[in-house]
Amino acid sequence: MSNNIVKPSILPGFMELNPTDQILFNKMMDIIRKNYEKFGFLPIDTPLIEKSEVLLAKGGGETEKQIYKVVKGSQDMSLRFDLTVPLARYVAQHYSELNFPYRRYHIGKVYRGERNQKGRFREFYQADIDVIGNNSLSIINDAEIPSVIYSTFKDLGFDKFTIRINNRKILSGFFNSLGIEDVYAVLRVVDKIEKIGRDKVKEELVESGFSITQIDSILSFISIDGTNDAVMQRLKSLDINNELFIEGSDELGIVLEYLRLFGVPEENFKLDLTIARGLDYYTGTVYETYLDDYPTIGSVCSGGRYDNLAEYYTNQKLPGVGISIGLTRLFYQLMEAGIIKTIDNSLTRVLVIPMEGYFDEGIELSSKLRNEGIFTQVYLEETKLGKKFSYADKLGIPFVIVIGEEEKNSDVYTLRDMITGKQKACDYKELIMQLNNY
Amino acid sequence: MSNNIVKPSILPGFMELNPTDQILFNKMMDIIRKNYEKFGFLPIDTPLIEKSEVLLAKGGGETEKQIYKVVKGSQDMSLRFDLTVPLARYVAQHYSELNFPYRRYHIGKVYRGERNQKGRFREFYQADIDVIGNNSLSIINDAEIPSVIYSTFKDLGFDKFTIRINNRKILSGFFNSLGIEDVYAVLRVVDKIEKIGRDKVKEELVESGFSITQIDSILSFISIDGTNDAVMQRLKSLDINNELFIEGSDELGIVLEYLRLFGVPEENFKLDLTIARGLDYYTGTVYETYLDDYPTIGSVCSGGRYDNLAEYYTNQKLPGVGISIGLTRLFYQLMEAGIIKTIDNSLTRVLVIPMEGYFDEGIELSSKLRNEGIFTQVYLEETKLGKKFSYADKLGIPFVIVIGEEEKNSDVYTLRDMITGKQKACDYKELIMQLNNY
Repeated sequence: MSNNIVKPSILPGFMELNPTDQILFNKMMDIIRKNYEKFGFLPIDTPLIEKSEVLLAKGGGETEKQIYKVVKGSQDMSLRFDLTVPLARYVAQHYSELNFPYRRYHIGKVYRGERNQKGRFREFYQADIDVIGNNSLSIINDAEIPSVIYSTFKDLGFDKFTIRINNRKILSGFFNSLGIEDVYAVLRVVDKIEKIGRDKVKEELVESGFSITQIDSILSFISIDGTNDAVMQRLKSLDINNELFIEGSDELGIVLEYLRLFGVPEENFKLDLTIARGLDYYTGTVYETYLDDYPTIGSVCSGGRYDNLAEYYTNQKLPGVGISIGLTRLFYQLMEAGIIKTIDNSLTRVLVIPMEGYFDEGIELSSKLRNEGIFTQVYLEETKLGKKFSYADKLGIPFVIVIGEEEKNSDVYTLRDMITGKQKACDYKELIMQLNNY
Repeated sequence: MSNNIVKPSILPGFMELNPTDQILFNKMMDIIRKNYEKFGFLPIDTPLIEKSEVLLAKGGGETEKQIYKVVKGSQDMSLRFDLTVPLARYVAQHYSELNFPYRRYHIGKVYRGERNQKGRFREFYQADIDVIGNNSLSIINDAEIPSVIYSTFKDLGFDKFTIRINNRKILSGFFNSLGIEDVYAVLRVVDKIEKIGRDKVKEELVESGFSITQIDSILSFISIDGTNDAVMQRLKSLDINNELFIEGSDELGIVLEYLRLFGVPEENFKLDLTIARGLDYYTGTVYETYLDDYPTIGSVCSGGRYDNLAEYYTNQKLPGVGISIGLTRLFYQLMEAGIIKTIDNSLTRVLVIPMEGYFDEGIELSSKLRNEGIFTQVYLEETKLGKKFSYADKLGIPFVIVIGEEEKNSDVYTLRDMITGKQKACDYKELIMQLNNY
């Protein structure tokens, strides 16, 4: 036994789950994956380490400050900080082998050296889908993406959530029509309206040097509200003679029309002219998704349309549209809010406990159950029977079968339901039925 | 468009698959996961980055040279190089929350800065299971582990493979009985017999200073061969009066007996006294698994019993037994050998192609099919019909349905089988049946 014990611990800002929570996390990941696959998205799995020159081709800002460098030999390497940059690199690199429109999903870990605070993680899962066109991509894709969000969050067990949809061209076009050239200066402020409120936004716009007329127009514009059809109607009635604005309104109109065809119910999406989504990446449709009963959690799934995915790696024009679920953060927040719980969350359906001298029969039965597709553990250690039952209980395994003399000599098994405590005698056929029906 | 194009490429020694290969890789990973879960193993997912002092607590040798350091702030961090060290740290850290015997599986990426050569990867998946006891762990677990290997490789589609089994105590005890103290000096050489052959082993043993009598005994011992029962018989008939040897023989005897109870067929395992598995980690039962028709691939699944999992992190005695599949390397070699192929490997079952003006009907049908659980993509771009068919063909999507005037006005769909080229007219109910039966 060593005298130099290293304290077992992990780095701050990294999530590590206990087995029952991990089962739940994996279930969520499986549901997301299945929904992505159901819509024809193909998996990829790219290296977590990439050349720094590739990851930082765009360069600048927060990204570079948050990056984890990797050191081994002389190559300048880093850990990926999102799944979009690796996608851009992948599509540019494998351009000639891919079939466009290329639909890919990617569920994987990314790394950001963020300031350490509760609910923020430095290693976290993203679950992304994107559709990439070669030169062009139908606007109908912008309507299908929210239908994937809808299908996914329904399957995750949520009923009340709203996908808020806007089009950046509408905002840009409208600001242009007010004589504002630096659209981002407005967007940067408008984007914060959920967080800081209307008055503070007004204040900041004044500070930025916009005129009162401009600010009033901006605020009255982003306060347009009502049913989806009413919002579309208002946009048209504004009668703004700006090409970008008209293009954006037309696109939003098509997205609205097709969203309904894709079967997304009216209560689960909302045209919302305040949504801007960050600064410079998105160029058209943008999405944010909120859980209606937990608005403070913020957006749980966001994304949008971009003109050119891989401009830093290729001269091919590759427009796309996609979304991302920040799975680690979502899971953490759902747990914190008590929305999801992990009691009795076993994958194993039955624990077979052979009594002393009946291991042969216990093991044989376990193999038979597994061949029927029933996840089965056989308890192999020597200890008191009570401890064995308590083991099943603590792991949340719903059923126990004890194997002894009686079971050896007859085709009768006693199945114990660990939740109700009830026991039931049944033959093999009945046993399988009971365990499968659970 | 940017003028500064960064060449899109990945680091040498990293695997990145095209979409169809990735689908196959994921299928293999799913099969492994399902088999692990079927036997009651619980998932964990630990951070890829850990404190260097934790990862290198054991210290020394190859590991330290191959490690990837991670730099961000002042903390000394590294990428994990296997899944065993994180398991040891996890069990020590969460000792009081875990239920023993603790069975965990872990499928994840690990990092080793190995010399760059064909078929060797610096980032690769390991798929591990381990059973950890608190203070003690029944030897029967050593027989269940090969039954998991058997079940997994059968499900992966292999029939002819052999799990070779030995017990380190037999080797150590036997060498002790010959008056050899430094057992590892022998094991180190014996371990290479598959690679360098019997003569070279003899030569090296001479060089190491062993006597001819000792060497002859060693070589005659490790050439013991025959049926599993014959090998057990020979071990007993040697009548060696060494405690360790007797303990190891007894353990191997129990493992043999229970392996049969666990349902592993005789042709899929073999007692093999040449198996030693590395140097200092394993203390009892050891396993290696070979594909009978492809011996040059080497062991595809290895592992064994160890006395003390987490001695560098806790004073708790935690014996365990486990195995590891090096999935990335296995996949690469199976592809290279042509054992697995990835033609027509789509997840998507049907591509719905709406003609101009029939998007409504096409999208509606797609949603209905997805609700039936059929993975469906709808083709949304404008291009020639021929290109749309060729898209389905290239992606290996087995069925196509074209939606036009006829389909709008009747309940008749034309289902085209993309492999045979045959078309079949069917109503909705028949359509579902056809697509589900595929």
